[in-house]
Amino acid sequence: MKNKKVLIVAAHPDDEVLGCGGTIARLAREGNTVYTLILGEGITSRDDRRDRGKRVWEIKELKKQVERAGKILSIKNSFVFDFPDNRFDTVPLLDIIKTIEKIKKRVNPDVVFTHHHGDLNMDHQITFKAVMTAFRPLKGERTREILCFETPSSTEWNTSSPLNYFMPDYFVDISRTLKAKIKALKEYKSEAGTFPHPRSPEAVEIAAKNRGVQVGTTAAEAFKVVRIIYP
Amino acid sequence: MKNKKVLIVAAHPDDEVLGCGGTIARLAREGNTVYTLILGEGITSRDDRRDRGKRVWEIKELKKQVERAGKILSIKNSFVFDFPDNRFDTVPLLDIIKTIEKIKKRVNPDVVFTHHHGDLNMDHQITFKAVMTAFRPLKGERTREILCFETPSSTEWNTSSPLNYFMPDYFVDISRTLKAKIKALKEYKSEAGTFPHPRSPEAVEIAAKNRGVQVGTTAAEAFKVVRIIYP
Amino acid sequence: MKNKKVLIVAAHPDDEVLGCGGTIARLAREGNTVYTLILGEGITSRDDRRDRGKRVWEIKELKKQVERAGKILSIKNSFVFDFPDNRFDTVPLLDIIKTIEKIKKRVNPDVVFTHHHGDLNMDHQITFKAVMTAFRPLKGERTREILCFETPSSTEWNTSSPLNYFMPDYFVDISRTLKAKIKALKEYKSEAGTFPHPRSPEAVEIAAKNRGVQVGTTAAEAFKVVRIIYP
Amino acid sequence: MKNKKVLIVAAHPDDEVLGCGGTIARLAREGNTVYTLILGEGITSRDDRRDRGKRVWEIKELKKQVERAGKILSIKNSFVFDFPDNRFDTVPLLDIIKTIEKIKKRVNPDVVFTHHHGDLNMDHQITFKAVMTAFRPLKGERTREILCFETPSSTEWNTSSPLNYFMPDYFVDISRTLKAKIKALKEYKSEAGTFPHPRSPEAVEIAAKNRGVQVGTTAAEAFKVVRIIYP
Amino acid sequence: MKNKKVLIVAAHPDDEVLGCGGTIARLAREGNTVYTLILGEGITSRDDRRDRGKRVWEIKELKKQVERAGKILSIKNSFVFDFPDNRFDTVPLLDIIKTIEKIKKRVNPDVVFTHHHGDLNMDHQITFKAVMTAFRPLKGERTREILCFETPSSTEWNTSSPLNYFMPDYFVDISRTLKAKIKALKEYKSEAGTFPHPRSPEAVEIAAKNRGVQVGTTAAEAFKVVRIIYP
Amino acid sequence: MKNKKVLIVAAHPDDEVLGCGGTIARLAREGNTVYTLILGEGITSRDDRRDRGKRVWEIKELKKQVERAGKILSIKNSFVFDFPDNRFDTVPLLDIIKTIEKIKKRVNPDVVFTHHHGDLNMDHQITFKAVMTAFRPLKGERTREILCFETPSSTEWNTSSPLNYFMPDYFVDISRTLKAKIKALKEYKSEAGTFPHPRSPEAVEIAAKNRGVQVGTTAAEAFKVVRIIYP
Repeated sequence: MKNKKVLIVAAHPDDEVLGCGGTIARLAREGNTVYTLILGEGITSRDDRRDRGKRVWEIKELKKQVERAGKILSIKNSFVFDFPDNRFDTVPLLDIIKTIEKIKKRVNPDVVFTHHHGDLNMDHQITFKAVMTAFRPLKGERTREILCFETPSSTEWNTSSPLNYFMPDYFVDISRTLKAKIKALKEYKSEAGTFPHPRSPEAVEIAAKNRGVQVGTTAAEAFKVVRIIYP
Repeated sequence: MKNKKVLIVAAHPDDEVLGCGGTIARLAREGNTVYTLILGEGITSRDDRRDRGKRVWEIKELKKQVERAGKILSIKNSFVFDFPDNRFDTVPLLDIIKTIEKIKKRVNPDVVFTHHHGDLNMDHQITFKAVMTAFRPLKGERTREILCFETPSSTEWNTSSPLNYFMPDYFVDISRTLKAKIKALKEYKSEAGTFPHPRSPEAVEIAAKNRGVQVGTTAAEAFKVVRIIYP
Repeated sequence: MKNKKVLIVAAHPDDEVLGCGGTIARLAREGNTVYTLILGEGITSRDDRRDRGKRVWEIKELKKQVERAGKILSIKNSFVFDFPDNRFDTVPLLDIIKTIEKIKKRVNPDVVFTHHHGDLNMDHQITFKAVMTAFRPLKGERTREILCFETPSSTEWNTSSPLNYFMPDYFVDISRTLKAKIKALKEYKSEAGTFPHPRSPEAVEIAAKNRGVQVGTTAAEAFKVVRIIYP
Repeated sequence: MKNKKVLIVAAHPDDEVLGCGGTIARLAREGNTVYTLILGEGITSRDDRRDRGKRVWEIKELKKQVERAGKILSIKNSFVFDFPDNRFDTVPLLDIIKTIEKIKKRVNPDVVFTHHHGDLNMDHQITFKAVMTAFRPLKGERTREILCFETPSSTEWNTSSPLNYFMPDYFVDISRTLKAKIKALKEYKSEAGTFPHPRSPEAVEIAAKNRGVQVGTTAAEAFKVVRIIYP
Repeated sequence: MKNKKVLIVAAHPDDEVLGCGGTIARLAREGNTVYTLILGEGITSRDDRRDRGKRVWEIKELKKQVERAGKILSIKNSFVFDFPDNRFDTVPLLDIIKTIEKIKKRVNPDVVFTHHHGDLNMDHQITFKAVMTAFRPLKGERTREILCFETPSSTEWNTSSPLNYFMPDYFVDISRTLKAKIKALKEYKSEAGTFPHPRSPEAVEIAAKNRGVQVGTTAAEAFKVVRIIYP
Repeated sequence: MKNKKVLIVAAHPDDEVLGCGGTIARLAREGNTVYTLILGEGITSRDDRRDRGKRVWEIKELKKQVERAGKILSIKNSFVFDFPDNRFDTVPLLDIIKTIEKIKKRVNPDVVFTHHHGDLNMDHQITFKAVMTAFRPLKGERTREILCFETPSSTEWNTSSPLNYFMPDYFVDISRTLKAKIKALKEYKSEAGTFPHPRSPEAVEIAAKNRGVQVGTTAAEAFKVVRIIYP
């Protein structure tokens, strides 16, 4: 892949790194342009009732982390929106779809990466659904590939049922960019966990090696193909 | 089938034709009575924020198209409601269920056709869920068959996963009513697309022929059985 | 199992008996402590618009039935909340999750029983989702088993698709506590149906015998394993 | 249904009664003609190595039971073949297909009932596969309905996975022919089990009542639609 | 895609054209080299007992048709083997695997196309299984893509269950090579059917248009991704 | 678990270690007795035609490795049979079932571990099927738990479809016995691969850590519940 525009649509800050940080870095290095669209602010679910005012400072801080992580991965531009953290179900789906369509128009991507429908996290599920509608394969649609990434904890903590299980069929060798992924991840200080938390750097590294082993390399990221069109 | 009452429950105007127009025409010709219940107004999702007032004229026009298409297919009566287009998720599901139950009481159908749970369109999904609850197989329940139809674009644009894939197991030969279906479809001028749009008349015809080929005839509509009870 | 704390999370009064009444009685007899958490009030969906005031007396009466049924099954404590009957979709999921987390903290259960994701009833589905998030398998999480029960009518009236079908893999012999289950069920006078209604005592007894036959005994309750961790 | 020809294709003697004995009796009473095709001899798997000679007498006896059960259910004709019991995998599938095609030609059925693909018993699985090929929906094919029945023990003893789970969507009320089913079953003396064996008369009766409850009646048989064509 | 080696592994002559004739022609035109491996002789299942001798002439004739069709599609080389038509189940799977491995060594393909696991035809199923083993993603494995094609009739005549349903996620626009596909198909005179037979030229054309419509073009072939590795 | 009899049924030498070596060691340490039944000789598939004679020495050597690995894991007894490596499909399934039934009688296990039905390796699939039949849940059946393990490479190299994907729901913490598992694995010198081969010691260790992370611990083995009966 070369000279392509790539858009990552994620629900919360750090999901883009967890899901496809290694692939982002690799695609950028190989001459593609990568954008991220982050829908939610990622903070206010800590409160029983959402009080955005109270959390303004933290939200701002988290946005800075998005920038720093983006720089490490050579992301061209990160669009961060303000949908309420872990409360996407209180927003009409159509509003989220229209937000994505706006960025889509601006970026005009060839390839889109987003969450998997089966994630335990409801915001991830809703993000996936909105992407599916925003990128319908109509005549003239430029986007030729839609791929879903896995998000540590959210993906594997749902039920062990075909309803939501992540069963990848597309693998990207990230043996040369795993380091960048881990470095970017560490920028998200406010989101960090310690091993064996699935989003701790050690756990993320083990997961990447484990995916690598499945396809004969030392580190990989795994994806589920939604649709590939060979135009 | 003869002397039966048939109810089509659809989310938006033209879904009833796309999904089972040929079957409607055939059942009506063979001596059954067909009713349609259309839940949403089908227009207001064009706006960022729903403004029903602004769209009154278009809504009225669309209702006339429902009538004209219904006449072509020999539908006895079309009940059209006003749920907000592509925003069914902003309405409590129970409200939709209770609406369907009212029409059910009036029509007392033997057979019900509705959307498939796996459609990409959220209103279709919600319509399906509401039908499932409104027609539970309790003692005394008169409805003996529930069948799901496919809706061009919405059905095949969702993910290619068993979660939502349309896998028909009930086929109706419409080789003699395909023309009526296409004619009825053309009444929906405001909804029309041009080939290769999946809802263009040409595309709908190809789809019908393709389903026909699968069961040894020249045109068919395909359905998924939800429940058949041989009483 | 012995000296364990068991928590049943149900959507409505009587679901706990229908789903696992025999298992509750058995576990209590064998030296475990059983708690139930019932999220919804179970009454107000009878009205077109929820009017809690109008139904206060019935809600109170239903709570008494919870107590009486609980006594028969030797339930230690029943926590009953007030989420709107059959309108859980009008509440942010996060609110339900936080409610469950509060009781979780208090009870600190080893084993959790809850609804199956595939139930036709929307409140059941939402209860399941909330439990899944409230009991994520993080380090330090005490809960080692999550099991889903079936609820007569709601479980088998959904579509016959892998999307939601109840396919049990965990069976508890209740040949000695079936009587207690039926007795507890009869306390729910306001919820009763007559045979062949799936929630009538006769139907519940037949279902228990049918599950028993499947695993070589005379009565059983069937469950679907969500997660078992052997620590 | 009236004046139709119905063919039951079963792997072993007694499967036809267990799977659809009540439906057979009902269809026959209502003016249809029912045939059964039984592929295997049902005896020789008792030996470590098949020795048909040694078991000739038992095979003959079992055939008589087929006749007697058939008479009770008003089966017009039973075709019994000699494929090796529980060793259908030692025969090329094509041979079984060709056998079914021969009987198909003779009977020319409108409706076919057969085993479910997900049965634990390998002969059942192979029977299903062969039926699927023998009754492809080519132009001119007379068979309009293919339905799968469940077989106590074999159906529910397989894994609890969507791969093979029996999820019925077609129900026949057998409240008036359950007695005939049980009576026919009792003719299979050599195959009998005692309660709670799933094939004991008591267990079969409970299962029928349980299926009835699911659709609002007192006894039913449940089927999975493979294909219905409305010609 | 350019300068790639592509291998089609099919069970019988004409499957390669039906499954991906348009894609073959397109890939060849765009500068890739295409090989086909056909495992079975495609003739002898017409007899009750295989008698290869009796059918030698027809087998030879069919091989000539393979050549002629291959020329039209610009296939570089077709390897045709002699496994018994519709009796692949009488051959140890390992023998078929080893045959594929031999051709694999010779061709060293980047991309492999083969049958879908869910085809009704048993030889197709076995071909798929053998390919899966022959192309395991070990370190050093050159093949980066495995895709399954659909085969008219065999793919859609199996059950409508997730077990075997073809749910494509990879589409190739064949609007410029559909003609070549139909022309190649017509070379298989001995295999031809007349409309509405699913393998008749008219039906194949309709199917291609129908797939096209699904992704916004006028003709397409649809595939299921088994595995894509971005090395 | 304590004082239980545990039986591992595996297709080939080393599968028992790969699949559940850590669990075996742990269960043995905690006072249970573990037996293994290995069905195939694990060697002769290297030849185009099986020639057991030629490979006698290697088969003998492999059996010694079974013994040494078993000692490390404290396996009480290993029963090794001689079914032809990677050619289980040339043996009637009934023969394999009867072999398992013999060992079952001797061991009388409470818990059984075996392969997953979805493994790419055909011998694994057949082993699973045979176990399912040999351990049907009849009255009097002593075995209360059947669990499937994953086998590196075979489990994850099959298609990414619900048909065969391994989706675990039962986890055993092996943080204290991971070392023993790796040590036992290294005894299988003739089977070893080098990293990143999925069966290399390093890859096996990564996989165990990855499974651990999923349930909040530092190393785990993952299983799929087939059936648990609480008697």
